[in-house]
Amino acid sequence: MARNTGKDASAYRDAGVDIDAGQEAVKLMQSAVRSTWDAGVLGQYGAFAGLYALSCRNEMGDVLAVTIDGVGTKVKVAVACGRYDTIGQDLVNHCVNDLLVQRARPLAFADYIASAKIEPAVVAALVGGMADACRAAACNLIGGETAEMPGVYVPGEIDIAGCMIGLARAEELREAGSIEAGDALLGLESSGLHTNGYSLARHLLFEKAGYTVDTRVPELGCTVGEELLKIHRAYFPLLHTLFGDPRLHGLAHLTGGGFYDNIERILPEGLEARIDKGAWEPPAVFKLLTSLGRLPDTEAYRVFNMGIGMVLAVDPQGAAEIAALITRLGCPARLVGEVVEGEAGVVVR
Amino acid sequence: MARNTGKDASAYRDAGVDIDAGQEAVKLMQSAVRSTWDAGVLGQYGAFAGLYALSCRNEMGDVLAVTIDGVGTKVKVAVACGRYDTIGQDLVNHCVNDLLVQRARPLAFADYIASAKIEPAVVAALVGGMADACRAAACNLIGGETAEMPGVYVPGEIDIAGCMIGLARAEELREAGSIEAGDALLGLESSGLHTNGYSLARHLLFEKAGYTVDTRVPELGCTVGEELLKIHRAYFPLLHTLFGDPRLHGLAHLTGGGFYDNIERILPEGLEARIDKGAWEPPAVFKLLTSLGRLPDTEAYRVFNMGIGMVLAVDPQGAAEIAALITRLGCPARLVGEVVEGEAGVVVR
Repeated sequence: MARNTGKDASAYRDAGVDIDAGQEAVKLMQSAVRSTWDAGVLGQYGAFAGLYALSCRNEMGDVLAVTIDGVGTKVKVAVACGRYDTIGQDLVNHCVNDLLVQRARPLAFADYIASAKIEPAVVAALVGGMADACRAAACNLIGGETAEMPGVYVPGEIDIAGCMIGLARAEELREAGSIEAGDALLGLESSGLHTNGYSLARHLLFEKAGYTVDTRVPELGCTVGEELLKIHRAYFPLLHTLFGDPRLHGLAHLTGGGFYDNIERILPEGLEARIDKGAWEPPAVFKLLTSLGRLPDTEAYRVFNMGIGMVLAVDPQGAAEIAALITRLGCPARLVGEVVEGEAGVVVR
Repeated sequence: MARNTGKDASAYRDAGVDIDAGQEAVKLMQSAVRSTWDAGVLGQYGAFAGLYALSCRNEMGDVLAVTIDGVGTKVKVAVACGRYDTIGQDLVNHCVNDLLVQRARPLAFADYIASAKIEPAVVAALVGGMADACRAAACNLIGGETAEMPGVYVPGEIDIAGCMIGLARAEELREAGSIEAGDALLGLESSGLHTNGYSLARHLLFEKAGYTVDTRVPELGCTVGEELLKIHRAYFPLLHTLFGDPRLHGLAHLTGGGFYDNIERILPEGLEARIDKGAWEPPAVFKLLTSLGRLPDTEAYRVFNMGIGMVLAVDPQGAAEIAALITRLGCPARLVGEVVEGEAGVVVR
């Protein structure tokens, strides 16, 4: 396990860097970090790099999968609310979902936390949230860096990034069906904005509408802060049993770029994806944002997930059964479109 | 290969986020990224997660090693100089060295780049530098995220972080000798400040001495900017042949925390490390900084590497031969201290 604080020492404090705060943060987070470890983690807390014995999971795959992510300006909402555990979970779940669409199972996670000034309690809350989400995904938190960077970050703000390493099975990747004309597109419900569209959402809610995070908005049924901090849903528990299923042809995680960019990333040439936006009712927050910004569909469905966090391309024969399976596990899944021959990319209508 | 830009769309531009710049950056960096790939990289550029076939390197190890790092406020010097490729190399080399002390060989790297505004040319230069250093370390750059975060970063500033995944051999870890009383400590020359102590160095050089990055300082033989941007040395090419050598008992990468914290991380209980600061002459930049800040040794040797970037604990019988081997490869290595019984931790005198 590697956990460093970027900087050190005492005349250093005059230059704006506090070593004691960094070391206190490392101590505070230690038990949360250890709570994520399975028998594969080697070495002690505080080493230069985290070590993991692959033999501990060698039944799990022979292809390494790597993804790195942040949570965008959702960090600013967390700061405004003074609540940090949930964005820690957001970061991990975002990574889990990015591995999942490549049919990879989480193995290890490393985080980067930076701000103008290290606040030990903030770092501990962030890492506590990451550890919670890692445990839920059977992922070992084995590395981290906390950097105090005066002059780079706006005072009071923070940024977090995380890298997740997973394993996929070459056999499952080989046997994965590929997307073809006629495939059904299933949409899995999101839990809110997830981690994309926050710069626009903040602009519309805070500047245009004049709300604060504490404003209670009747149609949301909660405060603006509560709505915006809803935790990015992790789809791994719902979908990993389908990794070897030949009826599952492709998966797209709807992050930045929404329906358009993310589904396009998995579309083979000569095929287009038609999304029927009448197939589901966007949750209240998306209606509010669309109306505040007078956003045309081409923009709303690109910036926001509009209530769908993951799209599956499946064999049309199996679509109803797969949707029912996922729905039974607690996440409403429904038919939201189809794949057809064409050159138009992703069409939402 | 996963390469995303965090954000998207067009009313989005009013909220301070520019999707076209992000996509241009992704295009610009593509050939540099691909230049790092060996036969193990699977899938196409732009997927949700990068994939690597472990069978391609399965002779290389069965223990996964993970490290995550930034380059501290060296990013501010890069911004002031308008030069970005070198800090990309710094980031990768820092990670290479952190894996190396765990006897792991680099395999894959993923980067995170964030700023208030994405400048495609800056991102391309950063990733170009990372790719250069990755190629030199036989490391595949297979993931990345570029985030535009207005309101989180000070306008004009950037931050970069990177996660490196490597493989170590369980056998080499088992056979590695452990540090014992009587061990010789070898110091390997650094190439400058590497990536630590920049907040204090900038404070002393820019605020206290009133220099700018363009000031030519006679004793440095170059400008302040040139000195501060010297690239963090990668020690992997010098040391990987020693991984299985029973005479090598331990390695410490002197990053943030300098001699004190980093050597302490590898010291077994009941042993102390005595560093003889007369064993080498600190390069001019360290003398300048120490004198500008009137830093006591306890501070100077904690904040800065003082000319030594890596410390090896070796069997005293083999010390001269190992030092000569490393020196012949182009990096001066010398005896800088010893390990003795005691409770004082790291002593510099």
